[in-house]
Amino acid sequence: MEDIYQVIKDKADELLPEMISCRRSIHRFAETGWLEIRTASIIADRLTKLGYEVLIGSQVLNEEEKMGIPDQAVLDAAYERAVAQGAVLPFADMVKDANTCVVGILRCGEGPVIGMRFDIDALGVFESEDESHLPAKEGFRSVNEGCMHACGHDGHAAIGLGVASVLMSLKDRLRGTVKLVFQPAEEGVRGARAVAMGGLLDDVDYMLGNHLSGGDYPEHLVALSNSGTLATTKLDVYFHGKACHAGAPSEGDNAMLAAATAVLNLSGIPRYAEGATRINVGTLHAGSGRNVICDRAKMEIEVRGSTSKANEYMENYARRIIRSAAEMHGCSFEIRVVGASPSLTSDNEMNDICFNVCNEKLGIPCRSPEARNGGSEDYAYMADRVREHGGKSLFFNTISQMAGPGHSPTFNFSEDSLATAVKVFCGLAADLMGLQDGTEAFSFENPENNR
Amino acid sequence: MEDIYQVIKDKADELLPEMISCRRSIHRFAETGWLEIRTASIIADRLTKLGYEVLIGSQVLNEEEKMGIPDQAVLDAAYERAVAQGAVLPFADMVKDANTCVVGILRCGEGPVIGMRFDIDALGVFESEDESHLPAKEGFRSVNEGCMHACGHDGHAAIGLGVASVLMSLKDRLRGTVKLVFQPAEEGVRGARAVAMGGLLDDVDYMLGNHLSGGDYPEHLVALSNSGTLATTKLDVYFHGKACHAGAPSEGDNAMLAAATAVLNLSGIPRYAEGATRINVGTLHAGSGRNVICDRAKMEIEVRGSTSKANEYMENYARRIIRSAAEMHGCSFEIRVVGASPSLTSDNEMNDICFNVCNEKLGIPCRSPEARNGGSEDYAYMADRVREHGGKSLFFNTISQMAGPGHSPTFNFSEDSLATAVKVFCGLAADLMGLQDGTEAFSFENPENNR
Amino acid sequence: MEDIYQVIKDKADELLPEMISCRRSIHRFAETGWLEIRTASIIADRLTKLGYEVLIGSQVLNEEEKMGIPDQAVLDAAYERAVAQGAVLPFADMVKDANTCVVGILRCGEGPVIGMRFDIDALGVFESEDESHLPAKEGFRSVNEGCMHACGHDGHAAIGLGVASVLMSLKDRLRGTVKLVFQPAEEGVRGARAVAMGGLLDDVDYMLGNHLSGGDYPEHLVALSNSGTLATTKLDVYFHGKACHAGAPSEGDNAMLAAATAVLNLSGIPRYAEGATRINVGTLHAGSGRNVICDRAKMEIEVRGSTSKANEYMENYARRIIRSAAEMHGCSFEIRVVGASPSLTSDNEMNDICFNVCNEKLGIPCRSPEARNGGSEDYAYMADRVREHGGKSLFFNTISQMAGPGHSPTFNFSEDSLATAVKVFCGLAADLMGLQDGTEAFSFENPENNR
Amino acid sequence: MEDIYQVIKDKADELLPEMISCRRSIHRFAETGWLEIRTASIIADRLTKLGYEVLIGSQVLNEEEKMGIPDQAVLDAAYERAVAQGAVLPFADMVKDANTCVVGILRCGEGPVIGMRFDIDALGVFESEDESHLPAKEGFRSVNEGCMHACGHDGHAAIGLGVASVLMSLKDRLRGTVKLVFQPAEEGVRGARAVAMGGLLDDVDYMLGNHLSGGDYPEHLVALSNSGTLATTKLDVYFHGKACHAGAPSEGDNAMLAAATAVLNLSGIPRYAEGATRINVGTLHAGSGRNVICDRAKMEIEVRGSTSKANEYMENYARRIIRSAAEMHGCSFEIRVVGASPSLTSDNEMNDICFNVCNEKLGIPCRSPEARNGGSEDYAYMADRVREHGGKSLFFNTISQMAGPGHSPTFNFSEDSLATAVKVFCGLAADLMGLQDGTEAFSFENPENNR
Repeated sequence: MEDIYQVIKDKADELLPEMISCRRSIHRFAETGWLEIRTASIIADRLTKLGYEVLIGSQVLNEEEKMGIPDQAVLDAAYERAVAQGAVLPFADMVKDANTCVVGILRCGEGPVIGMRFDIDALGVFESEDESHLPAKEGFRSVNEGCMHACGHDGHAAIGLGVASVLMSLKDRLRGTVKLVFQPAEEGVRGARAVAMGGLLDDVDYMLGNHLSGGDYPEHLVALSNSGTLATTKLDVYFHGKACHAGAPSEGDNAMLAAATAVLNLSGIPRYAEGATRINVGTLHAGSGRNVICDRAKMEIEVRGSTSKANEYMENYARRIIRSAAEMHGCSFEIRVVGASPSLTSDNEMNDICFNVCNEKLGIPCRSPEARNGGSEDYAYMADRVREHGGKSLFFNTISQMAGPGHSPTFNFSEDSLATAVKVFCGLAADLMGLQDGTEAFSFENPENNR
Repeated sequence: MEDIYQVIKDKADELLPEMISCRRSIHRFAETGWLEIRTASIIADRLTKLGYEVLIGSQVLNEEEKMGIPDQAVLDAAYERAVAQGAVLPFADMVKDANTCVVGILRCGEGPVIGMRFDIDALGVFESEDESHLPAKEGFRSVNEGCMHACGHDGHAAIGLGVASVLMSLKDRLRGTVKLVFQPAEEGVRGARAVAMGGLLDDVDYMLGNHLSGGDYPEHLVALSNSGTLATTKLDVYFHGKACHAGAPSEGDNAMLAAATAVLNLSGIPRYAEGATRINVGTLHAGSGRNVICDRAKMEIEVRGSTSKANEYMENYARRIIRSAAEMHGCSFEIRVVGASPSLTSDNEMNDICFNVCNEKLGIPCRSPEARNGGSEDYAYMADRVREHGGKSLFFNTISQMAGPGHSPTFNFSEDSLATAVKVFCGLAADLMGLQDGTEAFSFENPENNR
Repeated sequence: MEDIYQVIKDKADELLPEMISCRRSIHRFAETGWLEIRTASIIADRLTKLGYEVLIGSQVLNEEEKMGIPDQAVLDAAYERAVAQGAVLPFADMVKDANTCVVGILRCGEGPVIGMRFDIDALGVFESEDESHLPAKEGFRSVNEGCMHACGHDGHAAIGLGVASVLMSLKDRLRGTVKLVFQPAEEGVRGARAVAMGGLLDDVDYMLGNHLSGGDYPEHLVALSNSGTLATTKLDVYFHGKACHAGAPSEGDNAMLAAATAVLNLSGIPRYAEGATRINVGTLHAGSGRNVICDRAKMEIEVRGSTSKANEYMENYARRIIRSAAEMHGCSFEIRVVGASPSLTSDNEMNDICFNVCNEKLGIPCRSPEARNGGSEDYAYMADRVREHGGKSLFFNTISQMAGPGHSPTFNFSEDSLATAVKVFCGLAADLMGLQDGTEAFSFENPENNR
Repeated sequence: MEDIYQVIKDKADELLPEMISCRRSIHRFAETGWLEIRTASIIADRLTKLGYEVLIGSQVLNEEEKMGIPDQAVLDAAYERAVAQGAVLPFADMVKDANTCVVGILRCGEGPVIGMRFDIDALGVFESEDESHLPAKEGFRSVNEGCMHACGHDGHAAIGLGVASVLMSLKDRLRGTVKLVFQPAEEGVRGARAVAMGGLLDDVDYMLGNHLSGGDYPEHLVALSNSGTLATTKLDVYFHGKACHAGAPSEGDNAMLAAATAVLNLSGIPRYAEGATRINVGTLHAGSGRNVICDRAKMEIEVRGSTSKANEYMENYARRIIRSAAEMHGCSFEIRVVGASPSLTSDNEMNDICFNVCNEKLGIPCRSPEARNGGSEDYAYMADRVREHGGKSLFFNTISQMAGPGHSPTFNFSEDSLATAVKVFCGLAADLMGLQDGTEAFSFENPENNR
C-alpha cells in the first residue's frame, strides 16, 4: 500500500489549482465577520457534495456567546448582496442572520476525534487598486469596497476544503472522527467562543489550528510556538452627552471631550510590569454637526496582554478611564464586550508530533517552538475547551511569502502555501488516526505503540 | 386709497394658512445645505407662477466662493431623493449640483433697489418622534432621517414666498426694484458669500434679513440689535497617519492620537482677553478598524469671536494646534475652510426705520436695538457687500414662541409669526418704495423729503 | 477759611516726595500676602506717630475667614527676614503669624463713618533687572528674589499713609470717623474676607477703594465703573497617588497623569453661554523623582466669572474634572478653597459723588462709569458687607502711566499718580464729612441739604 | 596554607558588624548623586588608612561626560551640610563640586587587572518614620529629609569597604591589580559614563558589579542573568512661555498647557512592537503664581527600552512630542540629557566563573543565568568600555530579604547579605588573581591552566 504521507502530498499538490480558484473567488467577494453568507454557503455546498455530514449555524453555535453581531439592517443587506453575488441556495438561507458557521463531519469508525479550525471572514479594509497588488492585477480584487481578505482567511477557507477532499479520499485508511470547523468572525475575536460553548468540541481529542504567516523564516515552512499570542478583549464604548448650539456650549454635555480624554488616557495606561500589553482605539465616530455640541460618540477599542492577567489589568484600567472620562463631562456611557480571547498556547506533545510529522514524514521543514509575539487568535477558546476534558491542542503557522503587512490594503500571500497547509493538516490526521499497514494510531497512553 | 400698511396686514393674515402649509411641506422633506433641490424647485416654480423674473444657481452664485459643497455622490443622491419627493421639473435640474439659490426679481420702475434674504436649508439633526413635538404629532416630521429644519429656515422660505405674493399684489403702488434672495447653505455659513460675490446685490440700496427667534421677549415681536452676531470660520480638518496592525503599534503613525490631542487642546485655547469666543469640534470620524492603528481622522470644527480679531485669534491658534498635533504623532494634515462669516451689525438708520414702521405703521411692538449674543449669520457677507457701494443693511429678529432650543431635535416655532415677518418685510418695502398719496419714498440723501 | 479742596491738593502735592520714598522702600523689600511684616510694621509705626488709634491683626481679622495662609515655616522665615530688613519693633511681633492687617482710626466727633481700603501685598514675580526698568535703574528693585510689587500695592500703601497725613491735618474741619484699612493678601483674594467678617466695617456708611490702573485713558485721571470686576474662586488641589519604581509603572497610581488630565480638561471647560469666564492652572508641582511613579501633585488654580453664576459654573465643572481625573488614575484628591471674591460693583450714588468731586472740586478729570473687564478684587467683600446695613461703596481707578503689564517683571507706574489718588480719597472725605463754612455734609437721607 | 576561600568567608563574617555600622552611618546621612561628599570623604579616608592608592574626583572622571550635575548653590549647600555632619577633611574638599568618585587601587605585581564597582548615592525619597521601618526604629533613619538610601547603595558602599579590607589582608596571595571604584550618581544613570570615559578602566581585564536585590528567590543567594536590564535615557525638559495676568490669558503663552499635553502624550507613546519599553514623567514643576499664566515648566523624564533600539524609539518619539507640545502653545523648549545607559548583559564566561565560585568554592547557592526584567544600571557603560579592549564583565545580584519595594519610603534590606556580597567579590578575585599553592590564576587564553 502506498505510503499515506505520499498520497497526501500528491493529492494536495493536485488540488492546488482548485484551491487557488476557490480562494480567489472568496477573496473577490470578501465578507466580514458574521456576514460570510456567500462564503459559508459555498463551503456547505461543497462539503455536502463531498459527502460530509454538515452542521450549520444554530446547530453549532451557542446563541448567547456570539459576540459583535452586526445590526439587522446590515445582516439583511449582506444577505441580499450574497445572493446577488452567487451564494448557494438553500444554504444562504440557513447561514444568514449571523449563522455563518459550517461544520463538516467525517466518521471513520472507532478512534480519536480530531477537530480542525478554518476561519473564513474578511476585514474592513479598502483593498489596493495598484497594479503591483496581485488581486488587482489578476482581477480578483474585492468587489465589496471597504471589505478585504487582508489576513489570509480566504486561504484558510480554501485549505479547509482542500483538507476535506483529501481526507474523504483517505476515508478507508483512517479511523476515528474528523470535525472540520469553518468558523465565522475570527477578526475581532468574536466567533470562536460561540463555537466552543456550543458543545461541538466536547469529544475532541486533538484540536488543530493554523494561520498563514510571514515573518523572518525564509527557509522554513512550518513554525511552532508555545506562547506569544495575546489575550485580548474588544470593547465598543458609547458616550452619551447632551447636544446644544455651539454658541452656548455650557448648556450641553460634550461627549467629544469625554471621548478625546478617554483616547489620550487609554493610550497612556501605564505599561504593565510583567509582560507585553497593547491598547488601541481603532475607531471613533462622534458628533452630529459642526455647530452642535457633540452628544454622542462611539469608540471601537481593544486591549491585549501576553497573559490573561496583563489583559485584565488593561481592561480594568480602560473601564475606569472610560467611566471617569464620561463623568468628567457630565456624560453617561455604555461598554459592550464584542470580542474576547484568552492567550493561546500549544501543548508540547502536539508540537512534538507536528515537528516529527513535518520533518520526518512530509519533508516539510519545521522549526522547534519559539516564542512569537503577535496578534490575538480566538481559536484559543477552542483550545481551552478541548483541554477541559483532557484533549490536546496545536496551533501552527504555515509560512508563506507575504506581500504587504497583515491587515493592510496590499496584503497577499503565496498561493503555493495552500498545499503545504493541507499536507500538514492531513499528515497530522494520518499520524493521529491513520491505519497504516495495521499499525495502531498514535497514543499518548501507550507511547510504545507509537511510530 | 386704502392704507398700504393695512393692505399688507390683511394680505399677510390671509396668506397664513398657505404659508403654514408651505412651511410644513418643506419641513417634512428637509434638505441640508446645497442639497435644497426640492425646496428650491418649489420656490422657483412658485416665483415663476407669481410672475417674478427668476434667476437660478449659476446665474447668481460666484462658483469659486461656494464653500462646503458636498461630494458629488451626495449631490446625486440628493437629486434622486428630491425627484422622488416631488421636486418640480425642470427647476430640479437647474438647481442640482449645488445650484440651489433662487432669486425672484420684481421691477416697478425707477426707484430704490431693495434686497431681501430668505435662507432655506435644514440641519443634520435627527428629529424628535415624541408626540409632544408638533411636527411629529401633526405628521410633518422630517421623512429624511438625520435631516431636520431645526432652525426655522423652513419658515424663512415660507415667509419669502408670502412676501413675494404680497409685493406682487402691491406692484402698482411701489417704485423701484425688489430682489428676493432664497439663499442655500446658511447653516455652516457656506452660501451667502457666493451670493454676495456673484454681483447680484451690487445695485442694492437697502438689504433686509430676518430670523425667527426665541428669547426672553414675551411681549415684543420684533427685536433689533446693533451687534452680537459672531464672526466665525468653519474648518474641515484631516489627519493622515499610517495604518498598521494594532499588535505592533509602533510601526504606524496614529492619527487617532493626533486628533484626540487636537480636540482637547482646541477646547483649551486660552480665553480671549477682549470679547467672547467659541470653539467646537462638532464631529470627529477616525479610524478604519478596531485592530488597525488609525490612519485617518476627519474633524468638522468651527471657531467664533465677537469681533473679527477675536475670531482670527481663535482660528490662528486652532491652526497651530492642528499642525502640532499632527507633527507630534508623525501625521500629515490638511485644513479646508468650508464656511466663514464676518460679524453682523445693522445700520442705525435702518434700525430707526424698522422701529418706526413696526411701532407706528404696523402696530407691531418693536424694541430699541440692544446687544444680543448668539450664533453666526452669513447674511453678514451680503450686508458688507451692499455697504461697499453705500447701501444700508438691516437684520431683524421676529420673535416667535419656541419649543425646544435651536438646533435641537424638538425645535419648533409658532407658525403665527410667519405672518408677522411678512408684514415687517413688506412694511419696510412700502416705507422705502411706497408711492402713497404721491409722496416720495424715504431717502437718506433728501431727508427733508421723508415722511 | 481756605477752600478745603485746595488745602487737600496742596498738601498732597507737598507729600509726594515722602510718598515716593515710602513706596520705593516698600517696593525694595517686597513681601507677599500674609507675610507683609516689615510693610505692616512701618505702617503701624507711622499711623501711631501721626496720632491715629491703631488696630492690628487679630483685633481686626476674623481668624476663621483667613484664606491661603502660608505654612508656619514660611511665616517664621518671613519674620526673620523682615526683622533683618528693618521691620519696626514691637509692631513686627504684633503682625507676624499672618496678622499683617493694620487699621488707623481717626475720630472727629459725630458724623458719618468712612472706610478706606489700601492693599499692601506683593506678588511672587521675579523682578526685571533690565536698566530700562525704573526700579532697577533707580536702585529700588526688590531684594527679595521672586517677590515683587508688580501690581502697584506698594503705591497703595504709600497713598494710604499720604491720606492719613492729610486727613489728620484736616481733623478740625471734618466730622465723623475715618477708618483706614491697610489690608494684607489681596493677591489671591485671600485677605479682605477676614477683614469684612471681623466686624470693623459694620458701622461704615461709605466705603472707598482704589486701584492704580493703566488702560487706554491717556487724558483722564479717574475712571469709574459699575461692573466688570470678576467673581473668582481660588483652589488648591492635591492629588495623592502611589509611588513605585518607574520600571514597574503598573504597580503605582500615577498622580502625574491625573494632574495632566485635569490641566487639559480644566482649560477646556466649555465657554459659558452668558458672560465672560476665566480658568488658570497657575502652578503645578508634581512628583518626587525621575524614576519614581509620581505619587503627589499640587495645583494652584483659579476660576473667574463676570457674574457669580458664571463663576459657580466654572468652579463646579472644575471640581467635577478634578474628581474624575483622580478616579481615572486610582488617585485620591483634596480641594481647598484658599481665596474667593464676589464680583464688584460701585453704587451709582457714589459714582456720582466721585464724578462731581473730581471734576468740580478737584479739577481732576473723571470719566462717567463704563463697563471695565479685568481681574478680581476682594475689596468686593468689604463692599458687600457695608451694603448689608445700608452703607454705600465706591471703587475707583486712578489712571497712571504704566510700564509693563500688571503682574509682569517690568511693571511700574508713574509715581505722580500717588498724589492724585490721595486727593481723590481726601476730597471724597471732605465732601462726605466736611464742615466747610458751616454747611452740612452730604446726606442721602436729606438730599436737599447737600451741596 | 589555609584555603583562600575559607579565609575570605571567615574574614567577611568577622567584618559584618563593622559593615553594618558603616552602612547605617551612610544611611543616616544620605546624600544624593554628585553630592555624596560626606560619604565619599569617609570612603577615601578609610581606603587611605587601609593602605590603598587613592584617586579622587577629577583624577578619575571625564569632566565632559558628567551628567545631571546639580546647580552650584546645591553643591555648596551639600558641602556645608556634609562638613556639619562629619565629613572627613581634607577629603571633603577634594570631592566637593561633583567630584564624589573615589577609587582605591591595590597593586599585587603582574597579573590580571580587576575592576569592581560600588555605587554610593541615595535617592530623593522621604524616608518612612514608621516604627515598623528598621532605620526609624533603630535610629538611623535619614536626617536629611527628602533624601534616603532607598535602593541599597549604602550597603554597596559598605560592601566595597569590606572588600577593601579583605583583599588587603590577602595581598600576598594575589597577583595583579584591583581597582575598587566607588561611583557617584548611579541613580539617574549619571555617573558611570564619566568614570568609563575617564580611562581608568582601559586596562581592566575583568569588571565586576553587584546589586542587592529582592525578588522571588527565597532559597538562593546569588542570581545571574544575561539580559534584562533596560537601556535608558534621562532627560530634563524645559518649556518657556510668556507670563501674563490670568484675566487676559490670550496675551501669554501657556507653558502649563504645553507641559500637560506633553505628559499625556508621552505616556501614550505607542507601545513598541519588539521588546519592552517604559516612560515616566517623574516630576513636573510649572508656573510662578495662581493668577499668572504659566511661563515656565520643568519636567524630569526618562525612557527605557529592553534594547537600545527600543530605547531610541522612545527617546525620538518623546523628543517629537516635546517639540510639538511647545510649538502648539507658542512656547520654546530645551531638552538636556542628564543621564543615559545602554542595556546591560554579562559575559557568559563570567557567569560560568561566578556560578562555579559560588556553588563550589564558597558554598553560596547561585542560580544559572535567567532573563530578569527590571530597572536600568549605568554600570553598563563600564562593562561596554572594558569589552572594547577585550575585557569581560559580570553583573550579579546578591539576593537579600527586602522590606518595602525599591525606591519606596519603607525600603530596607537584610544586613546579613553584606557579608555574602563581600564573599562573592573576594571569591571572584581569588579565582581570577589567586596564587594558591603556586597554581596559575584563571586565564581564558590558556584554559588548560585553569583550575
